[in-house]
Amino acid sequence: MGHEYSGDVVEVGKHVTDFGKGDIITGESILWCGKCLPCRHGMLNQCENIELMGLTSDGAFAEYMAVKAKYCWNLTDLLEKFETDKVYNLGTLIEPVGCAYNGIFVSGGGFLPGASAVVYGAGPIGLGAVALLKTAGAGKIIALDIVDERLEIAKKMGADHVFNPDKTPDLGKLITELTNGWGADLQIEATGAARRTIPLIESVYSNRSKVIYLGRADSLATVQLNKMVSGAHSFVGSRGHSGYGIFPNIIRLLHGGRLGSLEEMITSIFPFSGIMSAFETSKKRTDGKVLVKVN
Amino acid sequence: MGHEYSGDVVEVGKHVTDFGKGDIITGESILWCGKCLPCRHGMLNQCENIELMGLTSDGAFAEYMAVKAKYCWNLTDLLEKFETDKVYNLGTLIEPVGCAYNGIFVSGGGFLPGASAVVYGAGPIGLGAVALLKTAGAGKIIALDIVDERLEIAKKMGADHVFNPDKTPDLGKLITELTNGWGADLQIEATGAARRTIPLIESVYSNRSKVIYLGRADSLATVQLNKMVSGAHSFVGSRGHSGYGIFPNIIRLLHGGRLGSLEEMITSIFPFSGIMSAFETSKKRTDGKVLVKVN
Amino acid sequence: MGHEYSGDVVEVGKHVTDFGKGDIITGESILWCGKCLPCRHGMLNQCENIELMGLTSDGAFAEYMAVKAKYCWNLTDLLEKFETDKVYNLGTLIEPVGCAYNGIFVSGGGFLPGASAVVYGAGPIGLGAVALLKTAGAGKIIALDIVDERLEIAKKMGADHVFNPDKTPDLGKLITELTNGWGADLQIEATGAARRTIPLIESVYSNRSKVIYLGRADSLATVQLNKMVSGAHSFVGSRGHSGYGIFPNIIRLLHGGRLGSLEEMITSIFPFSGIMSAFETSKKRTDGKVLVKVN
Amino acid sequence: MGHEYSGDVVEVGKHVTDFGKGDIITGESILWCGKCLPCRHGMLNQCENIELMGLTSDGAFAEYMAVKAKYCWNLTDLLEKFETDKVYNLGTLIEPVGCAYNGIFVSGGGFLPGASAVVYGAGPIGLGAVALLKTAGAGKIIALDIVDERLEIAKKMGADHVFNPDKTPDLGKLITELTNGWGADLQIEATGAARRTIPLIESVYSNRSKVIYLGRADSLATVQLNKMVSGAHSFVGSRGHSGYGIFPNIIRLLHGGRLGSLEEMITSIFPFSGIMSAFETSKKRTDGKVLVKVN
Repeated sequence: MGHEYSGDVVEVGKHVTDFGKGDIITGESILWCGKCLPCRHGMLNQCENIELMGLTSDGAFAEYMAVKAKYCWNLTDLLEKFETDKVYNLGTLIEPVGCAYNGIFVSGGGFLPGASAVVYGAGPIGLGAVALLKTAGAGKIIALDIVDERLEIAKKMGADHVFNPDKTPDLGKLITELTNGWGADLQIEATGAARRTIPLIESVYSNRSKVIYLGRADSLATVQLNKMVSGAHSFVGSRGHSGYGIFPNIIRLLHGGRLGSLEEMITSIFPFSGIMSAFETSKKRTDGKVLVKVN
Repeated sequence: MGHEYSGDVVEVGKHVTDFGKGDIITGESILWCGKCLPCRHGMLNQCENIELMGLTSDGAFAEYMAVKAKYCWNLTDLLEKFETDKVYNLGTLIEPVGCAYNGIFVSGGGFLPGASAVVYGAGPIGLGAVALLKTAGAGKIIALDIVDERLEIAKKMGADHVFNPDKTPDLGKLITELTNGWGADLQIEATGAARRTIPLIESVYSNRSKVIYLGRADSLATVQLNKMVSGAHSFVGSRGHSGYGIFPNIIRLLHGGRLGSLEEMITSIFPFSGIMSAFETSKKRTDGKVLVKVN
Repeated sequence: MGHEYSGDVVEVGKHVTDFGKGDIITGESILWCGKCLPCRHGMLNQCENIELMGLTSDGAFAEYMAVKAKYCWNLTDLLEKFETDKVYNLGTLIEPVGCAYNGIFVSGGGFLPGASAVVYGAGPIGLGAVALLKTAGAGKIIALDIVDERLEIAKKMGADHVFNPDKTPDLGKLITELTNGWGADLQIEATGAARRTIPLIESVYSNRSKVIYLGRADSLATVQLNKMVSGAHSFVGSRGHSGYGIFPNIIRLLHGGRLGSLEEMITSIFPFSGIMSAFETSKKRTDGKVLVKVN
Repeated sequence: MGHEYSGDVVEVGKHVTDFGKGDIITGESILWCGKCLPCRHGMLNQCENIELMGLTSDGAFAEYMAVKAKYCWNLTDLLEKFETDKVYNLGTLIEPVGCAYNGIFVSGGGFLPGASAVVYGAGPIGLGAVALLKTAGAGKIIALDIVDERLEIAKKMGADHVFNPDKTPDLGKLITELTNGWGADLQIEATGAARRTIPLIESVYSNRSKVIYLGRADSLATVQLNKMVSGAHSFVGSRGHSGYGIFPNIIRLLHGGRLGSLEEMITSIFPFSGIMSAFETSKKRTDGKVLVKVN
């Protein structure tokens, strides 16, 4: 929280041409330098001088903030399709959805439409993954989370099947059946609870399948490399949301009505005065996305 | 016509395991040998000993036909989702949709969700392209045809905008505006009328954009190579629908309800006795897909 | 051993056109069916009905053997460039080199010329990886093995630096220095000793780097997923050598003199009568490739 | 000329960390802004505010020049391997070789080692393509030019066969034979004489082959789209050399001795006082690369 944001432009520098006063914008929270070796390779999310808005740099819990134009994206066109409030709300979701987009389509190279996919974890990034998989033509989407409320949101995002691993015996066998014995072509890990998810991931591989790893693991995880070799599977790590046309593509998807249900991910909106409650709510990890409305 | 088909299995060879008597199947119409050099490279659509069902080999205008199991795909699971008649109908559409799938996702390497796309020609392959672009997350889909009836079908397949080039002045400018000045990331040519389409294609390139060429051109076409160099654009030819998981992926998309409107492409169904009328109708080129029902 | 082979054709079936009596051939040892679901997807190395020559099917330790033509590749053109004996020898190396080729270029998607690479293990597959990396433009190749004799062969295959991890302190730091602090873009694991190699692999990642995993690990390995996420690294498993033009491409590399030093990998050639000694030699794991000459 | 350069650093700004006084550097001649929409997509060579050094911006025909650090690359490490003069010379070649690198490996997605390639035109970019194809494992390289002197240089760069189209009848047939009837997997057009080269290109396609178009065509060219469709061939345009790790990768190839013969491309070096003669020489188009030594 505090690194996704949207708001009105009140003033721009003289060289800024992409937007002006009165526009609604959102921004990347990965502040890349554009000059270091990774940046010059186009690897903005691996910038050597990276600053993370809301973590190592000032965040968006403020009435006014100054952001470099190169991190900002104009949302004003979305007013053609949505009410103003919805534009603000959708704007804050581009960052977490962008992390999923980066993982699936950029780092992971995408998938063939019709692919079967499993998403582990229905927090904001996992929910973003579900929404994107639906939008981009996954043939079957299975979402897992240990919080039932989040599974309900996953359904709204487009999941065909949702399961709570705490309440579902033989989940591997079930997924195998749901995919006609072929297994999952694509699996997206957005929990970080690797010790629990990886054995399940490994039990439902299809052939030459892909695992996109987005979760922040708190420990070492054990992986069965032999299985990866036999089936020619791959594990792809990914972080961030900058570069590669990620933000403008998500804005275009929103504009085209392809991600219209994304707003369902927002489960609470707090006033600025209630920011501490927002943190408390977020820490429970039963919500989707929790927002704070500054004014 | 006569190379796309679906029907009931009445008898199988003793080594066939993927389906049996009573199943509904469809089949590839590219009869690849599996032994020549291109086939061993996995390039089934470029098989050196290729036979084309309905062209160089017997087609499906017959009460019974014999097909090798390796060309067949089981549709029986679709009965879980659709009426029997609809399964037969959808089954016949997998071939033309498969040609579009091959062009866009296999030969062409796909696109990033959110991309803007233009489809030239709304015959069965062009309509298949529109449906797939919608399913796979194109942000904006513009379809063009000189037959208004076909444009109506394109809308049902998911096109955001349809235009008749005979009736629309300044089409290049219009497409540029509809894409906010960025241009089209992806263009699919499914007319073969290259002398007419290519100048328009070249006027709406975005940057590093892709043209998928599926149409059967009857003549040489002139291309502005300088534009291709400056913008780093590419032209990708493609034919066929075999291999690469194309058929099973489309079946999975249908099963998942991702291509449910595909049946709208079928504009006429003739009885076997009316086969000559079916040919006449097809030759008018105002229909979508014309089917013949053998019994 | 016993699954790589080369030899003279003494008789062919009547439909065989790619070679005839008197030709020298080699063959794939992965006997794929061509009809199962993975095969129809082009995933021959994941064939559901796979037979492995020399393991589940008869191998090449025989005076005569029968092989289906679709597994065979003609080596006769190599006689334009090499002595007959060398052609037989090189022919037996295409299989292990093909496994490395499949891992690096097919499963792994290749690398940009100039990339820095580390190869773990200098057995036949690891040596094949070194040779291919040199041929395909890796900018710096570092090979590791705990057997000094094998490191000597790695040098002949094109390694720029070779190290014995048992004798080299601070190997991670050394590799980092040799790559100017950037790290390795590509790492190929061909030992299977994952518990030892993975910590080193993880200490020399560059950004968005790739690990090709070919080794047969006898146990679970622990992986730091957090590092994979931050750096957007990927692990790619791979097995086999069939399909994708692998065999013909290696034959063309040999014909063009691009892999001329490959024969240096062969460290012992035994007569058929000495086959048991060949096995003993091979088990010592100090050799490169051990061959048995049937007649 | 005048947009490729190398030289000594005499002074750096206070934020510059990648090199300092006394270092030898070269630089990109595409001056990208880093802020426009294409740049933010990582498409530096399609920058909307592009300036081309030596064309729209001051070039390198000067004793001193000021360049932004983000366009510069440090060559000093090459002194470990080469004499000082050779480092200067090689430094000037990274730009044209970089254009070929961008076309083949970035825009074109590379090729499988062993591929057969034809290069049209043996000017600096075409010669760079030949050198890179050799370095990156093309199995057979055929170079064409109408100037015999340039064909001699192409041989030194690694071409297996060179032909002068003005003096070689039946060139298409000859290339087909040299590729055993399979044809060329990859063709690089670096002449711009499209009307002459394209018919030949179209006569030697393999299957699913790729044409990288780098030449600056002065006119429309006619392309047989039907052939592109049947064989699933692609044409890929490309320009520029910035981004994607192109410069550092070529520097690493040079450092590793992988492109050692590149200097053979330089056929004349003029003193600064002879600059007008340098232009005259260059205009004859019989040279490889012509350099001017400022001091």
